[in-house]
Amino acid sequence: MKIAILTIGDELLNGDLADTNTAAIAGILISHSLPVHEAATTGDRETDIAAALQRLAATQDAVVVTGGLGPTGDDRTAKAAASAFSRPLSLNDKALQQIRARFRIMQRSMHPANEKQAMLPGRSTVIANHNGTAPGFHLQHHGTELYFLPGVPREMLVMLKEYVIPSLLERFPDPPLFCQQTVTVLGLPEPEVESRISSNPLPEGIELAFNVELPAVQVKLRAKGKDARKLVDRAELVVRKALGEYVVGFGNETLAAATAKHLISEGLTLSLAESCTGGLIAKLLTDQAGASAFLERSVVTYANSAKIDCLQVSPDILEQHGAVSEDCAVAMARGVKAASRTDIGLAVTGIAGPDGGTEDKPVGTVFMAMTGPYGERVERLHFHGNREQVRMRTACTALDWLRRQALQQISDEPQED
Amino acid sequence: MKIAILTIGDELLNGDLADTNTAAIAGILISHSLPVHEAATTGDRETDIAAALQRLAATQDAVVVTGGLGPTGDDRTAKAAASAFSRPLSLNDKALQQIRARFRIMQRSMHPANEKQAMLPGRSTVIANHNGTAPGFHLQHHGTELYFLPGVPREMLVMLKEYVIPSLLERFPDPPLFCQQTVTVLGLPEPEVESRISSNPLPEGIELAFNVELPAVQVKLRAKGKDARKLVDRAELVVRKALGEYVVGFGNETLAAATAKHLISEGLTLSLAESCTGGLIAKLLTDQAGASAFLERSVVTYANSAKIDCLQVSPDILEQHGAVSEDCAVAMARGVKAASRTDIGLAVTGIAGPDGGTEDKPVGTVFMAMTGPYGERVERLHFHGNREQVRMRTACTALDWLRRQALQQISDEPQED
Repeated sequence: MKIAILTIGDELLNGDLADTNTAAIAGILISHSLPVHEAATTGDRETDIAAALQRLAATQDAVVVTGGLGPTGDDRTAKAAASAFSRPLSLNDKALQQIRARFRIMQRSMHPANEKQAMLPGRSTVIANHNGTAPGFHLQHHGTELYFLPGVPREMLVMLKEYVIPSLLERFPDPPLFCQQTVTVLGLPEPEVESRISSNPLPEGIELAFNVELPAVQVKLRAKGKDARKLVDRAELVVRKALGEYVVGFGNETLAAATAKHLISEGLTLSLAESCTGGLIAKLLTDQAGASAFLERSVVTYANSAKIDCLQVSPDILEQHGAVSEDCAVAMARGVKAASRTDIGLAVTGIAGPDGGTEDKPVGTVFMAMTGPYGERVERLHFHGNREQVRMRTACTALDWLRRQALQQISDEPQED
Repeated sequence: MKIAILTIGDELLNGDLADTNTAAIAGILISHSLPVHEAATTGDRETDIAAALQRLAATQDAVVVTGGLGPTGDDRTAKAAASAFSRPLSLNDKALQQIRARFRIMQRSMHPANEKQAMLPGRSTVIANHNGTAPGFHLQHHGTELYFLPGVPREMLVMLKEYVIPSLLERFPDPPLFCQQTVTVLGLPEPEVESRISSNPLPEGIELAFNVELPAVQVKLRAKGKDARKLVDRAELVVRKALGEYVVGFGNETLAAATAKHLISEGLTLSLAESCTGGLIAKLLTDQAGASAFLERSVVTYANSAKIDCLQVSPDILEQHGAVSEDCAVAMARGVKAASRTDIGLAVTGIAGPDGGTEDKPVGTVFMAMTGPYGERVERLHFHGNREQVRMRTACTALDWLRRQALQQISDEPQED
């Protein structure tokens, strides 16, 4: 069984937009044991779209297509499909009804351009879109299933789950069992991760892959066949043992989610004082619901006046050591913890760049301080990369400090065995 | 001239990682008038990589390949290239020297696995990597240029700019002139944007495209030939006139960058009180350097205690109206403005979901308040979508309020003509 994803749009080939649909679709397919064999992207030209459709229809068992179903003149996917498979466009009544119903729900009058979205290739089945105006469609060509969905992720993903997945599972009722687990590792370089794992034998049949998503390394454990789940579970235990405290998360769990989970389960409350990260640590922790259980406040103190007012940092410290200093980081952490009466106060101050670096404190210099139930920790750190990378590495390091703080609480508790 | 991008890695086809390299590479190529014709993605299997390489080498003039050059066992791109073009791998001395030099610079000892990265297909030219251990390589096959780069963006992009772009421009010395401008629009649906533009005639030769990046709509204006720049400039004027105040940015400028620019140029200082957005507004404003010129502080007040302490929100308001209320939003905005002594105070409080909604205040309900030089504005808003979308739409609306506040200041200034 070979499945391909085809994404369509000039914006994907001229640098304006990164394709996130392929990864989103692939993730959902694989969770139903439907692996993706290849992916392709074409621009908005009708001949290019038609050529890509013909090539994929000839080599794959199924193709999921996204994009180019909108109401504007540069949306040409339906026309290209019509010409690729010699099925002239015609007005599809069911599609038109759905578009009209959609506008009624949105309480907006339908723009005449939207009628074009109901022109579908002959012998297509309409795929309903409950979240937008572009209906999808499904057609078969010489035994290959082709599903056409809009490019807007929120609309597309619902249609994928409601229509495409059931249709694929009906067509391929017994996909080969497939199991995968991801182990996220922070603080070790990729070859070191591989070398630590390879000194512990993994169960036979496990395929091992690595993926660097800086600053983390992801270890992928995969297996096929009826024992896939069991093999992957056993391999996960081996990897956990080999990498110990460097393991920060499993599966789709982000470092922020893992950190939040540990803080919540240990009942630790947190306040943050962010300078160079500008709210990024709080943003990551609140990306998932439930952060109100532990995050009392986060103060982004860009100005010195804010550090003095909100965090009671003494003006003397700012004058003598500067805002980017160990002393200031400690004062910020203590200040935010005292003001908020939380268990932990964490602060970062640094130079994210591209400007502001000095010989003493080049761009990438960050001071991080944490004060909590186990005393204080403060470090001068240096991160490589551009502004975005320095900020992200700083935030991930802060999350890792918090995670380890929560784990320390666990390991310091009396152990029963 | 046809250029393709091939990205390699199982992680791109199993939902673990969205491919951002294609968009990054395409953006740089197009800025040198080198348009990308198509993009493709394969997994780590050697036969799949070899087949994709052969197909693209047969149909394109140049192929930029990323991924699969790492030191671990699942990195098979060099081997696949060797087999696709019948050029057996051999140890490349120059590549080995570069890897060794890299480890010396990093002051780390070289892992034996890294030696594998110097095994390159015969008759390859090494592409130096100054930011990582994986050297790239360049080979020619029947008139097609193939460039192999590592998948890590920070390493890959430097090699692209230093080696691939000059090599392509040498090979294709006079690429057809191409010019593009993006106009970002907020607050109008896509068909309405197109309809407003189409009622104003654009210069002949302008290609128009639309891209919905919710909550914004991007209008692309493109032209080819020696007058491309002039045509696009004229078209931009037409579009600005047609869309007026709904235009929020140009080119790669984000809404946050445009907002920051207007605040700085008007000398307005800002403080933020974020509840449901959890630091996202501050994060977006500090993504670019220079935010310290206007952002005094941002307070993420998740807990009621933080709203009372940091923002002087009266406990009565919280008790009578709740934290998600018009009264609370106004009190938060006033509180943060007073505490920070800035020109503008902006506050958001709402229910981002997935939990916490009620009949009166369903998920997506947001109260936004702004107090500034032109008095106060407060609104009850409702945003559709999941947690991430509600947060992003809330943040973009807040940025748009700030942008309009700064523009109001401009329009209220005495006009000279």
